[in-house]
Amino acid sequence: MDTLISGVHFPAQTSAADIAGKALAVNLSDLAAMAATPAWFLLSLSIPEFDKTWLQAFSDSLKSSAERYQVELIGGDTCRGPLSVTVQVTGLVECGRQVTRDGARPGDRIMVSGTLGNASLGLAQLQQQIKLPETIRGNCESALNRPIPRLELIDFLSRHASAAIDLSDGLVGDLGHILRSSGVGACIRQARLPVCDWIVENEAYQHALSGGDDYELCFTLPRKNSAAVAQWNLHNPDCRLTEIGEITDSGYTLIDGSKAIDLNDWHGYRHFD
Amino acid sequence: MDTLISGVHFPAQTSAADIAGKALAVNLSDLAAMAATPAWFLLSLSIPEFDKTWLQAFSDSLKSSAERYQVELIGGDTCRGPLSVTVQVTGLVECGRQVTRDGARPGDRIMVSGTLGNASLGLAQLQQQIKLPETIRGNCESALNRPIPRLELIDFLSRHASAAIDLSDGLVGDLGHILRSSGVGACIRQARLPVCDWIVENEAYQHALSGGDDYELCFTLPRKNSAAVAQWNLHNPDCRLTEIGEITDSGYTLIDGSKAIDLNDWHGYRHFD
Repeated sequence: MDTLISGVHFPAQTSAADIAGKALAVNLSDLAAMAATPAWFLLSLSIPEFDKTWLQAFSDSLKSSAERYQVELIGGDTCRGPLSVTVQVTGLVECGRQVTRDGARPGDRIMVSGTLGNASLGLAQLQQQIKLPETIRGNCESALNRPIPRLELIDFLSRHASAAIDLSDGLVGDLGHILRSSGVGACIRQARLPVCDWIVENEAYQHALSGGDDYELCFTLPRKNSAAVAQWNLHNPDCRLTEIGEITDSGYTLIDGSKAIDLNDWHGYRHFD
Repeated sequence: MDTLISGVHFPAQTSAADIAGKALAVNLSDLAAMAATPAWFLLSLSIPEFDKTWLQAFSDSLKSSAERYQVELIGGDTCRGPLSVTVQVTGLVECGRQVTRDGARPGDRIMVSGTLGNASLGLAQLQQQIKLPETIRGNCESALNRPIPRLELIDFLSRHASAAIDLSDGLVGDLGHILRSSGVGACIRQARLPVCDWIVENEAYQHALSGGDDYELCFTLPRKNSAAVAQWNLHNPDCRLTEIGEITDSGYTLIDGSKAIDLNDWHGYRHFD
């Protein structure tokens, strides 16, 4: 169950269609990280006023997302209040085949799906902190507003991953949850992060390291399962898996060229500072 | 799943402990109306600032409510935003023994549990619209702030009721949901409503008819099951069942002395007018 609040989880100007799509997607992403197949969901919608056009757009978008991801809306609640959307999704996983955060072991490879940092670039552009070239602006905005849950990885994770999490609050913080739960450390290499050219050219890796809202999956892979990755990448060019580092006994380090940065002092998005 | 929003579902000055207790209780009440036994719940909490004292009080109260009702918190979400609490409870019911809203048949008796209107009196007192005598003020305030879900009726409903709903938005509106789902009408008698003396003396039946937040159960009972009620009332003085009227073929009427009032023009609490 995740709540999205206007001005916190999405910019106030976000369209009704994008809010609906994102509210469902971020919850499905959570399930995918546990290797659970989405089954049904509940919606609690709080809106400041009854706006038929807005509601129609919200509802059409939610319906089409639900059909796309084959998950059924079974109930919920609507009321007047500050704009917020809570979605609760129930997923099913065969007994013993769930993936949790506590199974990472030293020597496991650290993998991520897709590209990191695009949603954060989209937000920075929207907040006029950066000026992206036209060619990638659309991509980054849609990464922010319409994340796509990596449901295609459910079966792969269930077979091969030792631990997994979805990236909602930024790689460093979210991977940190795996490390704490598993009682291990990690070393990740900045040069290996799958990012767009703009991030490389502008050395703006913070978008990939601590930018939120990517909704890619981060998981750990025992070495013996490495061959499965090459096979996966051959058949899934739209959901490439990249090895970004390795699980260690302890510590949490980022290798940036010849520098080693201690990530224990680095944090993802925090709701309360 | 129900969302409670500050200023909408509870007065802004409501204590953290009351908010937590109410958020869980209103959801359990929904389950009780379906004859489902609570199993586990999720919490999504949005708070405007990190206030340790408030959070401790909220969390202590939630924990003690969860223990009292034997339901376990299994996850959720916390973030910064306008104060609101969403709880989603999952309950279990034996296949085929659930109670829904569509089973009422002409001739069925209409029953309610407990006392109606107290929460509405409590709210009116708080908003200084009425001045209650000291002797009942505490009762009415606690009906508003700490509703008690009627979990003790789960088994009774499952055995005897043809349809049921919990009273969150007021009797007339909520019973109306049963009538529409079942395709039937109803006739209820004002003089039969289980209300406190103050309502009778002040002819303030609107608190019982359309006041929200009672969280008593309203259900329909086939005539052949009538004997079970007398038996129930004998053993459950704290959760008395009262017959307030009868299901009819069509129409929706309130008998007030010699007057017959058409309830189709009458509404419970509406979130959007």
